[in-house]
Amino acid sequence: AFVSSRAMSLTPAYPFQVSVSLHAENRVKLLNKFKTPDVLPNSVILLQGGKSRTRYETDRDEVFRQESNFHWCFGVSEPDCFGAIEVDSGRTHLFFPRLPEAYAVWLGVVHPLSHFQSKYEVEACHYVDELDTVLSSLKPSILYLNHGLNTDSGQYAEPASFEGLAKYRVDNGKLYVSLSECRAIKSAKELDVMRYVSRVSSEAHVAVMRQCRPGLPEFYFQSLFTHETHARGGCRHQAYQCICGAGENGAVLHYLDADAVVKDGGLFLLDMGGEYYCYASDITCTIPISGKFTEKQKPIYETVLRAQEAVEAAMKPGVSWTDMHLLAERVIMEGLLAEGLVKGSMEELMANRIPALFMPHGLGHLLGLDVHDVGGYTPGTPARLTEPGLKSLRTRRILEPGMVITVEPGIYFIRALLEPAMKDPVKSKFLNCDKLPEYLDFGGVRLEDDVAVTETGIENFTKVPRTVAQVEACMAGLDWENL
Amino acid sequence: AFVSSRAMSLTPAYPFQVSVSLHAENRVKLLNKFKTPDVLPNSVILLQGGKSRTRYETDRDEVFRQESNFHWCFGVSEPDCFGAIEVDSGRTHLFFPRLPEAYAVWLGVVHPLSHFQSKYEVEACHYVDELDTVLSSLKPSILYLNHGLNTDSGQYAEPASFEGLAKYRVDNGKLYVSLSECRAIKSAKELDVMRYVSRVSSEAHVAVMRQCRPGLPEFYFQSLFTHETHARGGCRHQAYQCICGAGENGAVLHYLDADAVVKDGGLFLLDMGGEYYCYASDITCTIPISGKFTEKQKPIYETVLRAQEAVEAAMKPGVSWTDMHLLAERVIMEGLLAEGLVKGSMEELMANRIPALFMPHGLGHLLGLDVHDVGGYTPGTPARLTEPGLKSLRTRRILEPGMVITVEPGIYFIRALLEPAMKDPVKSKFLNCDKLPEYLDFGGVRLEDDVAVTETGIENFTKVPRTVAQVEACMAGLDWENL
Ligand SMILES: [Mn+2]
Ligand SMILES: [Mn+2]
Repeated sequence: AFVSSRAMSLTPAYPFQVSVSLHAENRVKLLNKFKTPDVLPNSVILLQGGKSRTRYETDRDEVFRQESNFHWCFGVSEPDCFGAIEVDSGRTHLFFPRLPEAYAVWLGVVHPLSHFQSKYEVEACHYVDELDTVLSSLKPSILYLNHGLNTDSGQYAEPASFEGLAKYRVDNGKLYVSLSECRAIKSAKELDVMRYVSRVSSEAHVAVMRQCRPGLPEFYFQSLFTHETHARGGCRHQAYQCICGAGENGAVLHYLDADAVVKDGGLFLLDMGGEYYCYASDITCTIPISGKFTEKQKPIYETVLRAQEAVEAAMKPGVSWTDMHLLAERVIMEGLLAEGLVKGSMEELMANRIPALFMPHGLGHLLGLDVHDVGGYTPGTPARLTEPGLKSLRTRRILEPGMVITVEPGIYFIRALLEPAMKDPVKSKFLNCDKLPEYLDFGGVRLEDDVAVTETGIENFTKVPRTVAQVEACMAGLDWENL
Repeated sequence: AFVSSRAMSLTPAYPFQVSVSLHAENRVKLLNKFKTPDVLPNSVILLQGGKSRTRYETDRDEVFRQESNFHWCFGVSEPDCFGAIEVDSGRTHLFFPRLPEAYAVWLGVVHPLSHFQSKYEVEACHYVDELDTVLSSLKPSILYLNHGLNTDSGQYAEPASFEGLAKYRVDNGKLYVSLSECRAIKSAKELDVMRYVSRVSSEAHVAVMRQCRPGLPEFYFQSLFTHETHARGGCRHQAYQCICGAGENGAVLHYLDADAVVKDGGLFLLDMGGEYYCYASDITCTIPISGKFTEKQKPIYETVLRAQEAVEAAMKPGVSWTDMHLLAERVIMEGLLAEGLVKGSMEELMANRIPALFMPHGLGHLLGLDVHDVGGYTPGTPARLTEPGLKSLRTRRILEPGMVITVEPGIYFIRALLEPAMKDPVKSKFLNCDKLPEYLDFGGVRLEDDVAVTETGIENFTKVPRTVAQVEACMAGLDWENL
């Protein structure tokens, strides 16, 4: 007999089929945005896909993940490719590496170009070694290459490069901005993929909640989440490295060690999201390791939840994301005032940036092919602020239908922030310096949803237990959805 | 109540504690090998560790994996470090990136140098920005950098690089060869780690066998194996990407797609190995998806098993690995002769390289910090051959105690090899061209063990079901170890 109690099944919606027309639509959208009067006739957009890599100089292959802009334009899953779009006509060319016949022994089959042409539904497929010849034959007035600053990382996109490039006139500015603008607003087909991957990740969070117990190391749950999203939902990649911080580690915003043992009585902050067809999810739950929140944990948790609910109720097209951040801060201050952890008037607390001591990060970020998606600070959108908390906002945009954004308020008790603040002559006036030290081993609470802005409000893609009663029911193995 | 039937526990041996003295011993061994008469007095060995990386230009961190030579010398787990060894005295310096105080908010704590000094037990720790100053103060006659050809990948190791390097005299040849020579023979402490990771991977293979059933996609088992080794054994990385080929895909030697559905009646080739403390395991099992081998599968499977057993029985110090490859080929030919798939005398079959049509890869490879470990073709060891099959050997060394090597004979029915061979006027004489076509959808069988060469023979680190009876018992959930 099979040991069937251990076996999982696939999620019912797997495999989630994505039509290659998603990318044809993307290219139409890109060209519409791109064709401003300054664009020269007979110009060509040229993108280079991600390169296959090994671990250092060894022959150990790394798992390939396509470059996001290339995926958005073409949906090509193979490494080491190029793609070109004739701007006037939209005619699209793809270039694939020419593999020797002998590779059939190692790869089963070496696909001809006709295979790629029908797979990707573009006008023409060629080999990469034909790139210069094909481009030359197009006699482009200019090649638009993808080069620009990622405002989350501070790093620049690497433009396409090939032998022979030097003889073409190139533009290294316009394309990146246009792509970022386009990617910031998702199409209906993109929303379908994102809805799916958030569903898979939501179900995996539920599985983690149900297996949570003291005595296991934090990485156990990183592994479990990764397995649930991969095996059941087909997610080959995680959108980012799982953050699993138990107890005090919940207050370490970028906690990746995951070596500590999960201990009874503490909270467990779980920020984990799978990736499907290169689209990210990004969900955070915070749960009591014992299965029941303590009286000390409950008001902090419920304050964060109220902040999330207040923001999600207020979100709709035309609303400023900066205002949503400030709204979350106010709800958090109200909760901490009620607990007697901060003191003073709301105006003073906000003016002195006390909220940023407890939530130093921004309320949320655009989500898409990258977990911190592009488009946060493109030209014409509000610029980054400088004050604590607000300076961490990854976008200050006005909400528009089709944006997907995370809503992730949090309260953390971070020694590196609170200990200096309690000694600061100005900030300490707003802190209850008798009570706060009792919270320095509390850790943190973050609740993060993935939501799409609709014409009238939002659609929340995240379906996880959120109320205290739901979390406790889920962890007890009960039906939390119909409480 | 917890849903406890789904929960796994840690493997009883986890965490497997590795003493940092493993690396002090390695450095002593390296210097003993390194100090030949041509080494200048007051020279310094300088190594650069692996660099932290993001996904393309985004802020999405990649999971860090230390560079193998750096790990072997120092055991440092942090990215972006350097290490220097004064050759005359063995005095060791480590250099860590200087993180701003503000990082404490994101990382919990910013460690002082004293933390690293006690963690890594070296003579001195510094910041990377002090590298040039510290090296200058040592007044080195020469810096030995790590640069050399990896004979498995054909790529070169990247030597250390830093601003100011140009003013030092450097040697880019000697260190790489010395490191490869040292790494080819494992110390007792290294063998302990490798024994552990092979045990973890063996147990994970058993878990996969027990959950195998038709209808699930191949990647389900990639995910399950990864989860079992990570969650239960603490393996943060896989030694290589899991190869899970069902049915015909078992004959694709480098099969990574894993998108096909596992179908009843076929074989399932599973080549998967976890990595612990950077040490690799590399184990292959081939199982019948239904849980029972068919009469057609059994003789092929048992031929491969006989080849593995024959090699493992013959292995001991002084034996040539080339001879072991030829031994495996002979056993495979005997089995295929008995099945009537090939014909002719053993001498003719061998001389015409018929075995390479069924096993185009080498019998096995050195295993260590890299899955295809360094040291295969260092100076003074037998050079690579050119004939089919033999040219694929990753080493032709004479076995020595402390070598860890995989024993992985296989029989595959690869269309890209067999179809042309059946049309070849010479090769076709040795093939049963009436019967072979019935095997073109058979897939392949590979059985791979990780074994250490001892003073008198071998120690097999792999503990998985191997005989037909053991595999079938394991898949039925029975006690296969005490049949
Ligand atoms: Mn997030
Ligand atoms: Mn191997």
